[in-house]
Amino acid sequence: MKEFEFIEWIKAQVHASSGACASADVVLGIGDDCALIRPDAHDLLAISTDTLVAGTHFYAGTDPLAIGHKAAASNLSDLAAMGAKPIWCTLALTLPSWDETLACGIVSGVLQVLHRCGAVLVGGDTTRGPLSITLTVGGSVPENLAIKRSGAKVGDAVFVTGTLGDAGGGLQLKRQLRAEISLSEAQKFGFIEAASSEAQAVLMARLDRPTARVQFAQRLRGIASAALDVSDGFLQDLTHLCQQSSVGALINAAALPLSSSLLACFELSAARTLACSAGEDYELCFTASSLHADALVQSAADCGLRLTQVGLICTAPLAEPLVQCWSSDGVLPQSGARGFQHF
Amino acid sequence: MKEFEFIEWIKAQVHASSGACASADVVLGIGDDCALIRPDAHDLLAISTDTLVAGTHFYAGTDPLAIGHKAAASNLSDLAAMGAKPIWCTLALTLPSWDETLACGIVSGVLQVLHRCGAVLVGGDTTRGPLSITLTVGGSVPENLAIKRSGAKVGDAVFVTGTLGDAGGGLQLKRQLRAEISLSEAQKFGFIEAASSEAQAVLMARLDRPTARVQFAQRLRGIASAALDVSDGFLQDLTHLCQQSSVGALINAAALPLSSSLLACFELSAARTLACSAGEDYELCFTASSLHADALVQSAADCGLRLTQVGLICTAPLAEPLVQCWSSDGVLPQSGARGFQHF
Repeated sequence: MKEFEFIEWIKAQVHASSGACASADVVLGIGDDCALIRPDAHDLLAISTDTLVAGTHFYAGTDPLAIGHKAAASNLSDLAAMGAKPIWCTLALTLPSWDETLACGIVSGVLQVLHRCGAVLVGGDTTRGPLSITLTVGGSVPENLAIKRSGAKVGDAVFVTGTLGDAGGGLQLKRQLRAEISLSEAQKFGFIEAASSEAQAVLMARLDRPTARVQFAQRLRGIASAALDVSDGFLQDLTHLCQQSSVGALINAAALPLSSSLLACFELSAARTLACSAGEDYELCFTASSLHADALVQSAADCGLRLTQVGLICTAPLAEPLVQCWSSDGVLPQSGARGFQHF
Repeated sequence: MKEFEFIEWIKAQVHASSGACASADVVLGIGDDCALIRPDAHDLLAISTDTLVAGTHFYAGTDPLAIGHKAAASNLSDLAAMGAKPIWCTLALTLPSWDETLACGIVSGVLQVLHRCGAVLVGGDTTRGPLSITLTVGGSVPENLAIKRSGAKVGDAVFVTGTLGDAGGGLQLKRQLRAEISLSEAQKFGFIEAASSEAQAVLMARLDRPTARVQFAQRLRGIASAALDVSDGFLQDLTHLCQQSSVGALINAAALPLSSSLLACFELSAARTLACSAGEDYELCFTASSLHADALVQSAADCGLRLTQVGLICTAPLAEPLVQCWSSDGVLPQSGARGFQHF
């Protein structure tokens, strides 16, 4: 299979995987200079783009399906954070040399995730160069119901979906397996050597195959005052929300939702450090009146999702940090744990 | 300037460069999880994405402004090929390490080109990895006026804008300067050693700073039966148009529009080889009834653009190639000159 046959193969896969359940009104898909989409009447178009680079976002040698899965999930997570319904996706794939297994695996991973939320791959580009994948996703959201980062109000509760720190724990375990971190360094951080391989596998799967909270996010329209997805570290991401809303936040570290797998692999303080500062969980963090708390927890449960109130929005403190972390049980994350910057 | 300051800098640049003349109805721009755009009522959304990778699409060390310029022009060229009006753009930038001159230069190049056609940068992503840039562009086009690749009819004339082969000539000159091609190899191909440095500079500028034919393309709505942009080589690109239209084409090599700079640097046969097979000219190739020829030439001239009829659409031949090349003056391009494939 060569470059042009690859594009024919993708077209056939898209046709097979999208079919009748797709939400996109695709007038023209893959194969012309542009895709043509009929926009949802009266809705806004929400757009986001994200790149995954080998060596930065995933290890070379990662299962190609997982690379595609993560690329799609990380992009859809941005749509979820606006309360938008995913509609279309473009894929720009850069490969060092033609590798059918790698190329088809990545595309299959992307398509599996898109299919689950009714979005359609409508176009893309294949180029030669160091392995990377850039997706751009489009969705729709009614204008007055888009959930921005800037709407948090003093007194709102801060919620997070799912559990935090799992992907960060998974990354640390992968680095131990690759001997980038020695066992003694890992134990010093809080790694529990007796952790079961099952628990370790769960964390690494959370790193490789995150889930965008697309379905639940659309239930937050009109309820959440502000939202974003946790991609660079919870405290850092929440700081961005606070900056754009001109507020502060007070987070109870003891309330942070931690998975049993994370607690099986890391001591409590280390687990909380990961929950506060590690990226790539792709959970939603949002603010809403605490009056909605019970209904929101039930609504999340309907989507098979845990929802936890972890703090409160307060007036912006005079000095940084905007997000302050305390702990009702006295166990704090390591100080300085703020999150990931690319440079 | 760090990553977050860079995003603030981009926001300020976008604000300064787009201003009142932008066509996009941007409800929310850079800085949230998604951009929010109000779609043009009754129009289709046209989307395209393209990646430029250092070492594949441009040499490391290329002027950052030129990298940004070319990334934007190559993407806008796809919108032009549909007859779409450019509206928005996202930019995914991957840098080996933080380099303010490189990052700001690339973004400035993108913004200059977007500004000229009224499009707005609405979002993006910055990551660490081997230098590359992926743009996704969106535009609008009335549903029944989108120019697809599939509409060419037997008897239509084949037109191209501007001149062909200049970017390919520029690439060959750059390769000579870098000693990737020896002088004797270059002369064997048809390089004229006495070529003026001005002519050589023109060709290299066409490679580095192509121009998308955005304005003229919108005049082709309702007139062109099929169109695409010449990015991978004229004969190869036209073959795709013929495949999708189930037709063939007969091209007169002697009619191919060649610039005086190309003819100053390369012998006629070599110049025609470049015009037929070299990529990255980003001219438009389209088909239309020859009844429109005079009006189209005038319309192009109004846009400051040369327009040339280079051939005719015929019934699909029983055997490949779909596009056959003859020459009314007997000087043919080298056989086998078909165009660029990434793998």
